[in-house]
Amino acid sequence: MRTDVPHLLAERAREVEAHLESVVPSAETTPTALHAAMRHSLFAGGKRLRPALVLESARAAGLDPPTPALPVAAALEMIHTYSLIHDDLPCMDDDDLRRGRPTCHVVHGEAMAILAGDALLTLAFTHLGEAAQRGLIPAAALPRIVTTLGRCAGTPGGMVAGQVLDIEGEGKELDASAVDAIHRHKTGALIEASCVCGGLVAEPPEGIVKALSQYGRALGLAFQIVDDILDATSTCVALGKTAGKDIAQGKATYVSVHGLEAARAEAKHQAEQARGALASLGERGEPLASLVDFVIQRQR
Amino acid sequence: MRTDVPHLLAERAREVEAHLESVVPSAETTPTALHAAMRHSLFAGGKRLRPALVLESARAAGLDPPTPALPVAAALEMIHTYSLIHDDLPCMDDDDLRRGRPTCHVVHGEAMAILAGDALLTLAFTHLGEAAQRGLIPAAALPRIVTTLGRCAGTPGGMVAGQVLDIEGEGKELDASAVDAIHRHKTGALIEASCVCGGLVAEPPEGIVKALSQYGRALGLAFQIVDDILDATSTCVALGKTAGKDIAQGKATYVSVHGLEAARAEAKHQAEQARGALASLGERGEPLASLVDFVIQRQR
Repeated sequence: MRTDVPHLLAERAREVEAHLESVVPSAETTPTALHAAMRHSLFAGGKRLRPALVLESARAAGLDPPTPALPVAAALEMIHTYSLIHDDLPCMDDDDLRRGRPTCHVVHGEAMAILAGDALLTLAFTHLGEAAQRGLIPAAALPRIVTTLGRCAGTPGGMVAGQVLDIEGEGKELDASAVDAIHRHKTGALIEASCVCGGLVAEPPEGIVKALSQYGRALGLAFQIVDDILDATSTCVALGKTAGKDIAQGKATYVSVHGLEAARAEAKHQAEQARGALASLGERGEPLASLVDFVIQRQR
Repeated sequence: MRTDVPHLLAERAREVEAHLESVVPSAETTPTALHAAMRHSLFAGGKRLRPALVLESARAAGLDPPTPALPVAAALEMIHTYSLIHDDLPCMDDDDLRRGRPTCHVVHGEAMAILAGDALLTLAFTHLGEAAQRGLIPAAALPRIVTTLGRCAGTPGGMVAGQVLDIEGEGKELDASAVDAIHRHKTGALIEASCVCGGLVAEPPEGIVKALSQYGRALGLAFQIVDDILDATSTCVALGKTAGKDIAQGKATYVSVHGLEAARAEAKHQAEQARGALASLGERGEPLASLVDFVIQRQR
């Protein structure tokens, strides 16, 4: 049976948003300006792809229903959101549109945007600790979940390193391997972490963790190549963020380095790699396979 | 026997710096600009008070030598350093001198300073996860250590919330309780976390954790009151950071609200509270008691 991906994503988004709502301080809690800024970016109707990957990876690893993985899904979305807030700052990518809304610093000011990002990053780990303390996720899995998430979000192998590589590459002629490194660090690592950390909640055999890691790595790359294609071919209204931005900022992308057709072919190739990694999971891997199609075919 | 505090602090600083050196990516590791920025602020000769509190709290809780608590000490120093980097940014406190050196953004630019802070915050939690995974700290203690550290570093009860309260209070007439709330959140929480998290590595009886928490809370407040006194009475050269800054920025402090003498009396009172909290620890609490004297008598 094929998974109805839009339905699945909507369902997972609803679950994770209800969970986030219960975890993030309310806009009435002091200091209200901070919590309003955090909520502005967190509840802005993102695709919630990473939480969906966490939950479906947990399910593929044997946790059905995957509800116990919700704290991990929430942590991934908090880290993803913090990274968007900081990346959009004037001294970084200087963007004023995100998820179809004005960016955090445009509405709440730069200081509050930086602090909202800091608070979301901190809360992601805090929430994992709390969930383990309360037995919502297995305490024995916490060390590896925290380590995996932290490495993929940080440096030298993770997202912060990728953002630096991205900034350093602006206006330069980058070769294919340099663009590849930026993508793997900046976007790929956190997508891989979503799959691995989701799986770890189920405490599965190591082979399953490895399969989820390979799946996530290929999917993450496919996702970013599609992002580059959309940036080059779509509009701001369709994307909900500024289109044509990479070209305007002199950034090398899969499209600028390889051309549109080769980029499409590589996205397809990575999608096949991702599907292939699921082979050992059998029927249980089907929702994750369907998510590959979604990532490849998405228009925003 | 009275503890030789300058010797103790120098010894603990040496240990924690050697440990940090082994954990933080080298300045030759890609992306080098990021790691240079992280190291600029991390290895700038701070007092290393928080790591010392972690290690001495671990020792007071029964871990002698307290070497296994070094990952926790390193995590606390990383979080403290990230907070200094972000607090010094132009859109925050806009400071160009810290620990006697130009601040991170002055040397490495705003974008790299923000990312260096993000990376240090992320690495703090990653390192705790790794240490638990490798059995360097007890895995069973990780959930509570992560939760305590995260709450004290974040919002609504921790450091990020305190920074927001501090910014919001600029140029306003604050009453004593508002100044108290800023201090408890902005500085006190992380000092308390140092003591509690250090103690937790020893997996002691709950009474000891509670004593360390009370000690840390009182010491943190004493520390910040002394900070206010020094800001009002010292010089940039002596402090290694900009003096007279609170007054210049229209910030309410213990000194501006209560006057210099009352502030000195309150620091002394909190110091007594801190010492009192150590009563149940007996002789083992002596180094922590000596650290109180150091905090009260420090000139920078």
